[in-house]
Amino acid sequence: MTDSPDSNSMWGGRFGGGPAAIMQEINASIPVDKRLWEEDIAASRAHAAMLGAQGIVAAADAAAIDAGLAQIAGEFAAGGVPVDLALEDIHMTVESRLKTLVGDAAGRLHTARSRNDQVATDFRLWVRTACDRIDAGLKALQTALLARADEHADSIMPGFTHLQVAQPVTLGHHLLAYVEMVGRDRGRFRDARARLNESPLGAAALAGTSFPLDRAATAAALGFDRPMANSIDAVSDRDFALEFCAAASIAALHLSRLAEEIVIWASQPFGFVSLPDAWSTGSSIMPQKRNPDAAELVRGRAGLLLGAFQRLAVIVKGLPLTYSKDLQDDKETVFGAFDALALSLAAMTGMVETLSFRTDRMRALAASGFSTATDLADWLVREAGVPFREAHHIVGACVKRSEALGVDLSELPAGEAAAIHAAVTPAALAALTVEASVASRISYGGTAPERVREAIAAARAALED
Amino acid sequence: MTDSPDSNSMWGGRFGGGPAAIMQEINASIPVDKRLWEEDIAASRAHAAMLGAQGIVAAADAAAIDAGLAQIAGEFAAGGVPVDLALEDIHMTVESRLKTLVGDAAGRLHTARSRNDQVATDFRLWVRTACDRIDAGLKALQTALLARADEHADSIMPGFTHLQVAQPVTLGHHLLAYVEMVGRDRGRFRDARARLNESPLGAAALAGTSFPLDRAATAAALGFDRPMANSIDAVSDRDFALEFCAAASIAALHLSRLAEEIVIWASQPFGFVSLPDAWSTGSSIMPQKRNPDAAELVRGRAGLLLGAFQRLAVIVKGLPLTYSKDLQDDKETVFGAFDALALSLAAMTGMVETLSFRTDRMRALAASGFSTATDLADWLVREAGVPFREAHHIVGACVKRSEALGVDLSELPAGEAAAIHAAVTPAALAALTVEASVASRISYGGTAPERVREAIAAARAALED
Amino acid sequence: MTDSPDSNSMWGGRFGGGPAAIMQEINASIPVDKRLWEEDIAASRAHAAMLGAQGIVAAADAAAIDAGLAQIAGEFAAGGVPVDLALEDIHMTVESRLKTLVGDAAGRLHTARSRNDQVATDFRLWVRTACDRIDAGLKALQTALLARADEHADSIMPGFTHLQVAQPVTLGHHLLAYVEMVGRDRGRFRDARARLNESPLGAAALAGTSFPLDRAATAAALGFDRPMANSIDAVSDRDFALEFCAAASIAALHLSRLAEEIVIWASQPFGFVSLPDAWSTGSSIMPQKRNPDAAELVRGRAGLLLGAFQRLAVIVKGLPLTYSKDLQDDKETVFGAFDALALSLAAMTGMVETLSFRTDRMRALAASGFSTATDLADWLVREAGVPFREAHHIVGACVKRSEALGVDLSELPAGEAAAIHAAVTPAALAALTVEASVASRISYGGTAPERVREAIAAARAALED
Amino acid sequence: MTDSPDSNSMWGGRFGGGPAAIMQEINASIPVDKRLWEEDIAASRAHAAMLGAQGIVAAADAAAIDAGLAQIAGEFAAGGVPVDLALEDIHMTVESRLKTLVGDAAGRLHTARSRNDQVATDFRLWVRTACDRIDAGLKALQTALLARADEHADSIMPGFTHLQVAQPVTLGHHLLAYVEMVGRDRGRFRDARARLNESPLGAAALAGTSFPLDRAATAAALGFDRPMANSIDAVSDRDFALEFCAAASIAALHLSRLAEEIVIWASQPFGFVSLPDAWSTGSSIMPQKRNPDAAELVRGRAGLLLGAFQRLAVIVKGLPLTYSKDLQDDKETVFGAFDALALSLAAMTGMVETLSFRTDRMRALAASGFSTATDLADWLVREAGVPFREAHHIVGACVKRSEALGVDLSELPAGEAAAIHAAVTPAALAALTVEASVASRISYGGTAPERVREAIAAARAALED
Repeated sequence: MTDSPDSNSMWGGRFGGGPAAIMQEINASIPVDKRLWEEDIAASRAHAAMLGAQGIVAAADAAAIDAGLAQIAGEFAAGGVPVDLALEDIHMTVESRLKTLVGDAAGRLHTARSRNDQVATDFRLWVRTACDRIDAGLKALQTALLARADEHADSIMPGFTHLQVAQPVTLGHHLLAYVEMVGRDRGRFRDARARLNESPLGAAALAGTSFPLDRAATAAALGFDRPMANSIDAVSDRDFALEFCAAASIAALHLSRLAEEIVIWASQPFGFVSLPDAWSTGSSIMPQKRNPDAAELVRGRAGLLLGAFQRLAVIVKGLPLTYSKDLQDDKETVFGAFDALALSLAAMTGMVETLSFRTDRMRALAASGFSTATDLADWLVREAGVPFREAHHIVGACVKRSEALGVDLSELPAGEAAAIHAAVTPAALAALTVEASVASRISYGGTAPERVREAIAAARAALED
Repeated sequence: MTDSPDSNSMWGGRFGGGPAAIMQEINASIPVDKRLWEEDIAASRAHAAMLGAQGIVAAADAAAIDAGLAQIAGEFAAGGVPVDLALEDIHMTVESRLKTLVGDAAGRLHTARSRNDQVATDFRLWVRTACDRIDAGLKALQTALLARADEHADSIMPGFTHLQVAQPVTLGHHLLAYVEMVGRDRGRFRDARARLNESPLGAAALAGTSFPLDRAATAAALGFDRPMANSIDAVSDRDFALEFCAAASIAALHLSRLAEEIVIWASQPFGFVSLPDAWSTGSSIMPQKRNPDAAELVRGRAGLLLGAFQRLAVIVKGLPLTYSKDLQDDKETVFGAFDALALSLAAMTGMVETLSFRTDRMRALAASGFSTATDLADWLVREAGVPFREAHHIVGACVKRSEALGVDLSELPAGEAAAIHAAVTPAALAALTVEASVASRISYGGTAPERVREAIAAARAALED
Repeated sequence: MTDSPDSNSMWGGRFGGGPAAIMQEINASIPVDKRLWEEDIAASRAHAAMLGAQGIVAAADAAAIDAGLAQIAGEFAAGGVPVDLALEDIHMTVESRLKTLVGDAAGRLHTARSRNDQVATDFRLWVRTACDRIDAGLKALQTALLARADEHADSIMPGFTHLQVAQPVTLGHHLLAYVEMVGRDRGRFRDARARLNESPLGAAALAGTSFPLDRAATAAALGFDRPMANSIDAVSDRDFALEFCAAASIAALHLSRLAEEIVIWASQPFGFVSLPDAWSTGSSIMPQKRNPDAAELVRGRAGLLLGAFQRLAVIVKGLPLTYSKDLQDDKETVFGAFDALALSLAAMTGMVETLSFRTDRMRALAASGFSTATDLADWLVREAGVPFREAHHIVGACVKRSEALGVDLSELPAGEAAAIHAAVTPAALAALTVEASVASRISYGGTAPERVREAIAAARAALED
Repeated sequence: MTDSPDSNSMWGGRFGGGPAAIMQEINASIPVDKRLWEEDIAASRAHAAMLGAQGIVAAADAAAIDAGLAQIAGEFAAGGVPVDLALEDIHMTVESRLKTLVGDAAGRLHTARSRNDQVATDFRLWVRTACDRIDAGLKALQTALLARADEHADSIMPGFTHLQVAQPVTLGHHLLAYVEMVGRDRGRFRDARARLNESPLGAAALAGTSFPLDRAATAAALGFDRPMANSIDAVSDRDFALEFCAAASIAALHLSRLAEEIVIWASQPFGFVSLPDAWSTGSSIMPQKRNPDAAELVRGRAGLLLGAFQRLAVIVKGLPLTYSKDLQDDKETVFGAFDALALSLAAMTGMVETLSFRTDRMRALAASGFSTATDLADWLVREAGVPFREAHHIVGACVKRSEALGVDLSELPAGEAAAIHAAVTPAALAALTVEASVASRISYGGTAPERVREAIAAARAALED
């Protein structure tokens, strides 16, 4: 693509080669699908070995093909994939080189195969690896979150609803919420990987083939669980790419939530975190400034992931079976989604590992805003037998009076308290510290430090499985 | 909402009540969340029973609450849910009625609970049921597809790539491709259901609670596999709604592909199917006309599903923890997605069951366009040992010559054929019927009728599991 | 639609009526398109008058039709539109009632017309009015913003980049940024309105008609600028609906940005605003709490608008000409988009009018974080002739030293300053107040209060045009 | 980006440089924003000239800067933009080179400017040019459509609703529908261009500046209509990018509709068109095969455009003012959208110019399916005074009887016709040819060849304006 829309005349210049130039540009996929080279060679080697084993091609030809493909793999690993638009795609690029290396035997490789099942196989293999890589990235993020949660199992921070201080929690507990989210993300990629792990190879153009293939053998050689059951579906299906993008979108939404928190926490009024130099950009004029650029970029990348899912979905919508060329754009879409998510995960893991938490400021804010009012209500229910809804109203009156007096709830004078309700004793009020509040939330999954430590232990055990 | 934007002055009229009217309209959710009534009452009954069992409320109160809730369930089942915007949502609607029925005991129901965990619980229960309902609808569609595939295991139709005739396949084989797609859809809903089946109840506002809850008991009572592990996550998470919409989107894309095929097949030039009256609309002026309205509506509904996923994803993007009011719109989004997909499935199942296939026209088209050219190439490779790429070129020459002569490939004169390549014998050409072609595709997953029948049997066995 | 997915068996119950029930539910549009009743009647009256004037129907028939339609309009205005699924849509609902009222003459109304051009006409009229209503709502928001900007033309607040304090600005200036955004929104709706204001009426089914129509007359009667130039385009086009949704999406994004600021500003650490009771929800237990629910709901509604555009775009993608039934869902989509945006505008306008700004807290934060560092750099360039990049580095050193000493930039000791660079004189440092900073930004469009007042005056003048 | 997810260890290898490597990869924009080089240099030259004219920098410095920038422009035009991640973006890349060329004077260029207003200016200039380029592409497509419409003003083809034959139209009339759609697209880009054509330059970081800028001068020098009125809005706004993507999405939807028609028309059963070699791909084995790859790719690209709008919208959603780093991804998004649309337009224009229409097959299909039934109804209304709804029913009976007899409507025996209704005379039936039908649709915008020719003339006149 030209750098600028006006660097030369698009209609008169760039596309001046006429139909041929435009068609080649819209049609050739090698600049994109060269990323499939390892998968393409692996699949061809598995296919050739099977053709040899089944006697469909001579053993000598199969061996020559295999050696040639091994050599090409070495060449591409060392020097990259050559991009020649005339060869159109990665499949022809490999086959053309193979012909140079092994001569006529190369012409036997494509027996009982078509580009339709070949590209479906390559792409599935690539997405399978991508699932594994993303899983590793998600696991690294969980590990980082758990380390910080462990460090801050007792650190008190305000829990928010509507970005308003609601109840005190611990920072460790808050970080564990993300461990859970990321855990579900891993589950989604695991499910996607399991569902896609079937081999299209042998579906040929769309109808299967008359050669005595052993599809189970090529499936096994490539680590697939089984061959796909229907040849038409095998070449038409792009569910695996859609499901990858959907799972990636949800993961990116989780990252966007944590990124938003980092941006807000890093603002001066919050001052909950400071970012290390490595994960922020500064200003030579304001050296104290730490712009949370990495967090913002991660937050924005949710747009890329959602756009990728939408793009692929729009492509697939209303397509009759089997293969239509619209589907060619599936790869660029998924490659971009993978890159964005992988990079976001790496950046977020780095931030989580190195964020400096200002727990003094967190604790101070947690104690503000009558954040323990519900503790008093619970106390009235539990210790004085007041129905919940009534306790709720009593505490409301206490808060209102405290606010009028400019004191905290725990400082409400005994007489004032008693005037509201006899059960609001000094002992009740004295217990309203953020530490006591947090310590009391001992229900399973609650924020009491003992529960948080149990949750960390359980999450770590699960992580090591 | 007013019927028309100009039925009265929006700014001066409808919103004339001022802030209160606007705020109530934007804030109240009861017109939407009343659909949660069964789940809300079920969750409250489980909660009340647990509070009683744990001694958090007196046994008598727990019993009164349970009886009251049972009565409300009966009332709502019989007469619908009353919509009073002042009561805001389904939770207050139920609790308000409960107070009327059982008096002060009603005030104890909300002990150790918050609307945050309550709505998360209700909504998960609803989505769980929705997954089950969609699974039933998908299974019904598979059943219908299998019945028609069985009927047409031998019926020859053209297999298409790029909507161009490519190779002959059987109609049964083509329909089985959709059985596979729908099978993956079922897998996605199954995975989504398994992942969401954890109980938020007991997370309270966000931090857990100091009451001695038995979260495992309420989880079990509601059919959840376990309580959620983190109270902050429990009230913030909407993954289950996103995952439902993502799975529904992919399913809708499958339906859109089949719908597109029905529309194309029903066009006069194709004439592959005719639609029964029940699934088309006509014209009193052109009684022979059958507009495939139902198929078109199903195709278009892919837009609704994709829009629903996008809507929910945009809502969640960048939200700090825990609950923010933005999330209130999750329910309308998911309800709409469910309704659209359920209705689309019902309509598509009905169409599949009743479509009339014109197999004579399918077979005729399948035999056109040199659709068996690849069979000749395969024959040359298999029987005459020609390398695939060379065979490919030989057949190209044969087709070109046949086209010039205005004959089909099987009619190419022997002399003409021999002039191109000695291996192109009359015997080779004679075998090029669509029946022979289809019968030869015996690779696993291929279109040979025997493979199709095996695939039907396997799919039916899987369906009955 | 049934309330709950399990309120009865969807497959066995609700759709138990079989194909007929499912088809009617997916096909009938009257529950949605009844909102078009005023437009439908207006368009029919214009059509009937033209038929009469052209002598296509007898004058007496035209008069009877007109009287009947006028009566129906009165009935619907008073009692609403009756919903009878058997009558399918608003067009048949009106025509059926007309037949009851005026007998056989009713059968002449549909001469030289089809439902295809009729619905396109009705829907365009509705969207045109919707554009006008949205424009009124946007103008009301601008008016509210200008009033508050005027009130706070001098109030100093921190200007942010990356949510980090960057430079002091005035609150009035900040609010004017939204006046600009909303102004562009109005431009987009104005352009959309102008582009859609052409009449499809007379395109008939798709090909035009053989009757001697006067399309210019019906166009004029309905306030259209002209008839559409191509009958096929007239019945196929839904650009106007797409463009409405696109403009609405961008407007909703603006509202989401302001809503996000309100949520952040209302948080305790910022404390820039407090929300009146009317625009927040509270907690009976924490009466001081003001949850910014309305702002959050407005922020989240951006999801609905983006989802609406996406939905309609997916519907249109890949549709062959002319009308396909997929398009039926266009109306529900646009109606929902309009409702959401109109309500969001009303709520945002209400919030802007009544927000209480805590300017003391804004000013205090504005003065923090060395926010006037760039002023010092500009001073060095302007007064001491230092190149900008060098001035930038000098100020960086000053800030670093001030930070080390724990003082503000203006408090940097003279000796320390001189040691860094001779040009950093006490006079230079003394000028570094936020008031001076703001007052100095006198470039066109800058934040100096005099510029802000000029901008307010200009905006008001434009508003009154 | 690495070619393959498993070409080396992402976590251990690629990102092995640790935070620095990851941060640089996520943060640096030069690989993308180098496309802004011409705009960046033009804006800097305008800025420098103004600084000189206003006496803010010395005339000699301004001249040196201008000469240096001119030299850099020459270097980049000849050798491309060097990509050095350490220089981060195009602005620093240019400034760094300038410093090498002109020394200290380079440090004065950034006076009274910030990267925030600089990038906003560059990007607006780029999008403005992009609008012009797209307009040229749209105009070229209109020109091609008009040429083919003129050629086929009389060629009869079936008009479809629901992809069912409905009424005969002319191919010229059908193509003109696309001329209208593309005309609206041009209007949208024109409006977008007009709205964006305001200069952000001089907004500086966000607050304006204290230097005596002449923003009107830089605006004029860069071809902007005026400076933007609010400095905060100037650096925060990305409406112009969103509006570009929205307009591009709608244009891509139009292309997807035409592409779908080409794919369907090129199928063997339709056989309405054949594609030249240049715009299709073949098969060496089936030389007669013409896969409409280019049309399919254009159809699928609608997904990219819609995904681009969604991506950018998600990025902007909920961003507080002013600049946040999330916005950095705006450029990649818009560049991709432009490339895809420009290429799609070029390809579609090429296809339209060279498609071979098989008008014999079109006419034959147009005459099938009782496509002139509405003509008979109109005749009964017009010539025999039958009310429309009654005429409709009479014709329905005639069609039903003809279908039963296996004859066309025009062949219905006189006795049979008279038995249905006396007005159905032989003369009436004799007139029911497709030629007569088409010729009769003389209403404005109708398909009668005389109307089509008038419409072509009007469109050509408009095109030349």
